[in-house]
Amino acid sequence: MSSKETSREKILEAATLLFHLKGYHATGLSEILKESGAPKGSLYYHFPNGKEQLAIEAINLSAKTISTAIKENLATYDDPVEAFQYHIGTIAERFKDIERKTQFKNVPLGLLAMETVFVNENLRQACEETFIIWEKLFYDKLRTSGYSEDRACLISGTISALIEGGVTLCFTKKSSEPLHHVNKMIPLLLSQ
Amino acid sequence: MSSKETSREKILEAATLLFHLKGYHATGLSEILKESGAPKGSLYYHFPNGKEQLAIEAINLSAKTISTAIKENLATYDDPVEAFQYHIGTIAERFKDIERKTQFKNVPLGLLAMETVFVNENLRQACEETFIIWEKLFYDKLRTSGYSEDRACLISGTISALIEGGVTLCFTKKSSEPLHHVNKMIPLLLSQ
Repeated sequence: MSSKETSREKILEAATLLFHLKGYHATGLSEILKESGAPKGSLYYHFPNGKEQLAIEAINLSAKTISTAIKENLATYDDPVEAFQYHIGTIAERFKDIERKTQFKNVPLGLLAMETVFVNENLRQACEETFIIWEKLFYDKLRTSGYSEDRACLISGTISALIEGGVTLCFTKKSSEPLHHVNKMIPLLLSQ
Repeated sequence: MSSKETSREKILEAATLLFHLKGYHATGLSEILKESGAPKGSLYYHFPNGKEQLAIEAINLSAKTISTAIKENLATYDDPVEAFQYHIGTIAERFKDIERKTQFKNVPLGLLAMETVFVNENLRQACEETFIIWEKLFYDKLRTSGYSEDRACLISGTISALIEGGVTLCFTKKSSEPLHHVNKMIPLLLSQ
């Protein structure tokens, strides 16, 4: 890995952490640079269009990382109930030790979406596209498990809202319990 | 209504709108004052402890307003399926014309919670308590409809996550569709 790549990744990691701690608007470029430890010129070298570009690239990177995780988790079990429960369980696990903030390596998508919906259309769109990609992966798992198009659409949209709301409640309560709680509802939700 | 009460309310309304547009951290006291049109001295007169106090009072006011709406909505129908679908439908309606930002008269609780979880324990607690109050109202409706304690607990926690996630997706997509979508799942979720 070249030092250029390392600086770029360090900046994206620092931005992701700061977005968790303070959100998009209140995070300054100088703070991101300081947190990353990257050389001063590297921020504008890698992200010439500034904070918006940086945030969109951080969202796209998280979209990719989480998509891979969703695919892997849902492929772990053939049975869709077991597969979704396993996936939601892995998300819940991240909240077990929430004070170890460094474990939050992906952007808080719901937070960025809520913060930018009225004031930054490019960021809002990046968030919307990411939610659509993830929901499609849920849909695909259901379709390959024999669910009808309508049923797979209804269930995947519901699971998308359940996970997003569960994550917000886990953060708010500093606990993994809300996601474990909704996980108990998966067998009923997926009943045919 | 005295002019003192009016100033106080105007400040809380302005803060609520700005929290929607920019979140907690990026909203400054001077902006709140400007948006409210209240006299300069009134901000520290009504909120001597500054932005945190203002945000907590805005959260408590929204908690009360929304609690009243939940009670009224759930009391509209005896049948719990109809009652919850009516309640979720009324939330969805707010997103029909999302660009009329003035319609968002309550604080974006999920956004404030996510923004403050790591950096402001008082605000986090105010958000957590509010979620607990709302969930309890769902639980009570289910209990009076004959659901067992365990089942009412499971369903009310799930509905809490579904609404919170649905609201985030409605904001992100600038559409009422995600909440209408999850609403179709209510009959199955509430099946005994």
